[in-house]
Amino acid sequence: MTLHKAEKVVIITEKMILKGVCKIIEDCGATGYTIVAAGGKGSRNVRSTSDRALVIDDFANVKIEVIVKHKTMAETIMVQVAAKYFENYSGITYVEDVEILRPKKFN
Amino acid sequence: MTLHKAEKVVIITEKMILKGVCKIIEDCGATGYTIVAAGGKGSRNVRSTSDRALVIDDFANVKIEVIVKHKTMAETIMVQVAAKYFENYSGITYVEDVEILRPKKFN
Amino acid sequence: MTLHKAEKVVIITEKMILKGVCKIIEDCGATGYTIVAAGGKGSRNVRSTSDRALVIDDFANVKIEVIVKHKTMAETIMVQVAAKYFENYSGITYVEDVEILRPKKFN
Repeated sequence: MTLHKAEKVVIITEKMILKGVCKIIEDCGATGYTIVAAGGKGSRNVRSTSDRALVIDDFANVKIEVIVKHKTMAETIMVQVAAKYFENYSGITYVEDVEILRPKKFN
Repeated sequence: MTLHKAEKVVIITEKMILKGVCKIIEDCGATGYTIVAAGGKGSRNVRSTSDRALVIDDFANVKIEVIVKHKTMAETIMVQVAAKYFENYSGITYVEDVEILRPKKFN
Repeated sequence: MTLHKAEKVVIITEKMILKGVCKIIEDCGATGYTIVAAGGKGSRNVRSTSDRALVIDDFANVKIEVIVKHKTMAETIMVQVAAKYFENYSGITYVEDVEILRPKKFN
């Protein structure tokens, strides 16, 4: 069997705090992350303009994905990002089960 | 335990119907959604130009993600979007199990 | 029940090999794929500039998603992409369980 269980943490938040979020991810020991530009609408209505028609032109958010081997590291990243930023910035975070090739690439 | 089970609905479809898809999502009671620009190739070959080499410059699609707490709401969104749009526009929709922090933010 | 089990393969790699990765996906029999522009940082530090502050402006990577019905096809795509490209190009690949509507659209 070539596949190994791992966890994917996703954080969707405001672009202006990207650097700080990435620092938490690295400080927690993750070996890498992927960033995608995103727009959208959140429960606080601050993840984009309130006019849906403009959403697609308004990529003021980022979606950050991190693959880690253990759920404890996943949960640590999620809790630290939420504790530091989600009182003052809009954002959500969730985790999904994935299966990876080459587990040596990940912590 | 800080994590709670939830569902992530993903809809990948043509940008021109984004507004209508977002209306269905909101009418179903979801508290937010995330939008990413996308390209690609679908079973009807209409999700992008047919020339693969051009795909990366051709973000005529959108990927919309919605986190909801219950699978019934996830399935309602998927079925309504497919019924209203997927006869006339290309698109796919799927749902994944996720775990979230702060379930009060989601319906 | 309207939902059917399927697999989502994700490949995150350098934009310059997109065409070759898409050829593998099609040759394996998948009916479509979705492409998103991405940046990030990998275990080899070659998925982006080394300066985190610049990451968001540097979408030299692509995230490719493929929905297939069976895990054997998912694993074949992952193994072939990794074997052909991941010695010389940075990249990761993982697979997730999803549930789809309309299974006739997928191989």
